[in-house]
Amino acid sequence: MILYNDQLVKRGDVQIGIEDRGYQFGDGVYEVLSVYDSKIFRLKEHLDRLSYCAQQLGITLPVSLAQLETNLYQLIKTENVQNGQLYFQVTRGAAERNHLIPESSQSVLTGYATFKPRPIEHMEKGVSVITTEDIRWLRCDIKSLNLLGSVLAKQKAAEQGAYEAILHRNGIVTEGSASNLFIVKDGKLHTHPTGNLILNGITRVAVIEYANELCIEVMEQPFTLDKLKRADEVFLTSTVNEVMPIIEIDGKTVASGKVGELTRRLQQVYEARLKHL
Amino acid sequence: MILYNDQLVKRGDVQIGIEDRGYQFGDGVYEVLSVYDSKIFRLKEHLDRLSYCAQQLGITLPVSLAQLETNLYQLIKTENVQNGQLYFQVTRGAAERNHLIPESSQSVLTGYATFKPRPIEHMEKGVSVITTEDIRWLRCDIKSLNLLGSVLAKQKAAEQGAYEAILHRNGIVTEGSASNLFIVKDGKLHTHPTGNLILNGITRVAVIEYANELCIEVMEQPFTLDKLKRADEVFLTSTVNEVMPIIEIDGKTVASGKVGELTRRLQQVYEARLKHL
Repeated sequence: MILYNDQLVKRGDVQIGIEDRGYQFGDGVYEVLSVYDSKIFRLKEHLDRLSYCAQQLGITLPVSLAQLETNLYQLIKTENVQNGQLYFQVTRGAAERNHLIPESSQSVLTGYATFKPRPIEHMEKGVSVITTEDIRWLRCDIKSLNLLGSVLAKQKAAEQGAYEAILHRNGIVTEGSASNLFIVKDGKLHTHPTGNLILNGITRVAVIEYANELCIEVMEQPFTLDKLKRADEVFLTSTVNEVMPIIEIDGKTVASGKVGELTRRLQQVYEARLKHL
Repeated sequence: MILYNDQLVKRGDVQIGIEDRGYQFGDGVYEVLSVYDSKIFRLKEHLDRLSYCAQQLGITLPVSLAQLETNLYQLIKTENVQNGQLYFQVTRGAAERNHLIPESSQSVLTGYATFKPRPIEHMEKGVSVITTEDIRWLRCDIKSLNLLGSVLAKQKAAEQGAYEAILHRNGIVTEGSASNLFIVKDGKLHTHPTGNLILNGITRVAVIEYANELCIEVMEQPFTLDKLKRADEVFLTSTVNEVMPIIEIDGKTVASGKVGELTRRLQQVYEARLKHL
């Protein structure tokens, strides 16, 4: 079963119009959520962000956040996904094609649950990344369906045997194609500030909270590619990747090439919190 | 009837998957074509561009260009659209959601014909535009379904009572939200050069050809907002808008506020060519 607006229905029963603005303009927003032991990680934060993004685009959600929360739990129960992921998106719905936002259209929510193991081995050993120019639009704070910039970056990484692409604008590191980026230098965490150039990831916020609890200073300030490559530790964060150590950038090892100590401590806090969701 | 891959089918018979990458990533390309007296304006150029854009994204077209040409003519005949527009798009098709380009997926083409009168009155009197920051991605040469940047710009224009939004990056004019822009200064045409910052519109190319025939010099070089506002004449071009005079920018009249002479001459050439499609 999948989620379709406010109901659980069979996938084959869903009819997406060819003039759905999600299909013609990428005119919609989405969320990816992790399910641990039948509980959804930071669901409230995801719903708040959904609400923010929809509001930025002037999209009306077809269900209340409370109803959506109930439905998401119903979905993972029905699908028996105790550990895995939820994906859902809301598009502005169908209207006669025109760039202008239609005066009335019925938003469409589609979502589903999938089993997906946590990337345990990668989190243990660390991953390699490439760096590439950030060619995305200037509203990266909106988690929209306009994802081609990320698709092309991630594809480029994969073609070079890397796990993720780290993006930069004129040498200033922004984030990963589908993740946020942190570096450790002299015991402090550094990450790009929020604003229009990055998505304020739910795991990014969680990690900053964890760092604060551990009394690790967090500098939310732009930094250069050069600083990235001279970092003591580097890791990325995302719902899917949690706290993922990066041990190689553009073919060169990060520091000693081993997963760093602060990275490990943050992974441990993340892990510990899963027991109390 | 609508066009679905290589066939004409009833709209209700088309099933778009919720995991169609067009729906989840805006992962597709499109074309809008004008039909005059049952003939398609510059069809070959549209098909060549489609081919270029699909190739840039690594999307395989589900039909040959020759077959597509035949089908588009079949579509306007079946729908009896002697004058109007054709829209079609090709997405990468359905695959389990992942930013990475799937190793195999079946591209999906959907298209339809619509009656739409030419914007004769606007072409006669001219239109007003606003200027706004170009927040789109850095591959505007690809006519992709990632259109939110254009949607937001066009919407902003409409909310200010304007017909179109003219975009600029740090004060350099690129193009309109769904059109190319030309200015006339001292008898010469100026327009942004091709490259990754603009879409090389079919009508843009046609107008440059017409200008060459009329021995009007065309400078394909970047110019500033300031130069735009001091132009003798300004017009935009697009498949839908043909050669559309702009008589007001950000509330201020362009030159005398009347449609300029070169603009009129180019409109006349455009019109004359329609008789020999």
